[in-house]
Amino acid sequence: MTRVTVRRRVRRVTIGERTSRVEDVLAGEEPLEIRVGGRSYAVTMRTPGHDVELATGFLVSEGVVTAGDQVATARYCAGAPDPASPAATTPETTFNVLDVGLAPGVRPPDPALAREFFTSSACGLCGKASVDAVRTRSAFTVAHDPVRVDARLLAALPGRLRAAQDVFARTGGLHAAGLFDAATGEPLVVREDVGRHNAVDKVVGWAAARGLLPLRGTVLVVSGRASFELTQKAVMAGVPVLAAVSAPSSLAVELADEAGLTLVGFVRDPSLVVYAGEQRVVEEPAAPAHHDRPAHHDRPAHHDRTGDAA
Amino acid sequence: MTRVTVRRRVRRVTIGERTSRVEDVLAGEEPLEIRVGGRSYAVTMRTPGHDVELATGFLVSEGVVTAGDQVATARYCAGAPDPASPAATTPETTFNVLDVGLAPGVRPPDPALAREFFTSSACGLCGKASVDAVRTRSAFTVAHDPVRVDARLLAALPGRLRAAQDVFARTGGLHAAGLFDAATGEPLVVREDVGRHNAVDKVVGWAAARGLLPLRGTVLVVSGRASFELTQKAVMAGVPVLAAVSAPSSLAVELADEAGLTLVGFVRDPSLVVYAGEQRVVEEPAAPAHHDRPAHHDRPAHHDRTGDAA
Repeated sequence: MTRVTVRRRVRRVTIGERTSRVEDVLAGEEPLEIRVGGRSYAVTMRTPGHDVELATGFLVSEGVVTAGDQVATARYCAGAPDPASPAATTPETTFNVLDVGLAPGVRPPDPALAREFFTSSACGLCGKASVDAVRTRSAFTVAHDPVRVDARLLAALPGRLRAAQDVFARTGGLHAAGLFDAATGEPLVVREDVGRHNAVDKVVGWAAARGLLPLRGTVLVVSGRASFELTQKAVMAGVPVLAAVSAPSSLAVELADEAGLTLVGFVRDPSLVVYAGEQRVVEEPAAPAHHDRPAHHDRPAHHDRTGDAA
Repeated sequence: MTRVTVRRRVRRVTIGERTSRVEDVLAGEEPLEIRVGGRSYAVTMRTPGHDVELATGFLVSEGVVTAGDQVATARYCAGAPDPASPAATTPETTFNVLDVGLAPGVRPPDPALAREFFTSSACGLCGKASVDAVRTRSAFTVAHDPVRVDARLLAALPGRLRAAQDVFARTGGLHAAGLFDAATGEPLVVREDVGRHNAVDKVVGWAAARGLLPLRGTVLVVSGRASFELTQKAVMAGVPVLAAVSAPSSLAVELADEAGLTLVGFVRDPSLVVYAGEQRVVEEPAAPAHHDRPAHHDRPAHHDRTGDAA
């Protein structure tokens, strides 16, 4: 059914050495058509797996739903639209079309926006009628989330994300997104995909299905860069802190400023750069919540860098 | 007009050291609406600059045009669609909407596909009516391009790409795509963007404007991974060899197989992995075209690794 990885014989060339033929493992990439109420809504190039989470998270990002229970049903359906040629339906197409049924009372996507929306393996902004509509309004306000994050803990999160990645080590071809508890640094969920926006949608969909939106008190960590659309997805899900391993774009920072999101880039233990919402990043351990331990302590257990070693 | 980079004061944190406030340089990201004949066709999140190349290359990728002279005009227009509120037009919006006029006889995009197509800062596949339409047919056939590429030369190209990158070193936030002569390894053009697909479109648009399509005898080098849509763009432009610094996806390899494209990944001097079309990658120098030099010679000048040093 799903093909998270695909094996392939390849030719490995190293100059000055013998060429070898080896079996390589590729990150799976297949199109997924997301339908809402039987109507085509988006096509995204994704790594198969966690498709319902992906669809749910995508709908959160697009502002169609704000909670997991607003998605009543989700089922795969035949990819061949023509009932006269059922032979065109293969198991592959069957699992590449997902039809989402919204709960009663949830307004389906605006008919004025009823053209199909398209995303791709590394796409996130989709379906905006015009440039002016780029900034989607979120149902959640992140600006007032009082959460604070210790800089040491933050610096260690990308290492923890890598440690939790299943497929990356095998293929080198997947992006990852992980949701972490801002207080403890514990991972809540980690998802991988050929597209970073899909990985984020899967994380958000996971959270929505558990009734965790808005995602107060969390840090969303993404491999690679922080683009506008990843920032938008964080805002739409009510995430107060977005941390990227690499650089943010100008528009990502602009949106973070407007939305009151904390945006941190180049998070590479032991350093990081705070681009927006810097009040949330504290460099001294906050006053201890547990009064039975000293106010100042050097590098508590959950701040060490064990995540990097894995 | 254009904002390739944007300056911003940031807070740089290194655990155990003093926090510093420094000025950082961000990769510019702004939406661009591409119109064809006044009609909205796509919105992409891109780094401003080379917008006409971007639009032209995008139209090549979508199969709308196959040569640069099929684009008769390209002009920026006001972003505000409502003539009653001209105040809504700002210099920024003015340069974020580009209207392309096709030459007489060139068929505009299929009205059946007339819904807007959307791409994003890391998106390439856009505007396909269904999953079944993912594989766009190319006007060019790359399968029969007899070009051969020396593996040593190929291994050195990412270094040459990095050496030619202007903005990357400053922001760390841009992807690059470069077109190289397969015989000499000389760069023909290098473009940068927050989105890899945009960088590739700019390269293709540059070539189209010079009447160079199909791009026989060239190697397209991309930073990062080779996704399906980047592979599709190479095929649509008639590029016979696509080389990526990181991993290809399963669908990229599948498409390369089908189209007869040579797809090389993990190109990291002195090694690389050939995923498809391996007949084009030669490990011994091919029989010399110039009979006045010896048939075998050790590491000719254009095969050395100077590109990596820069």
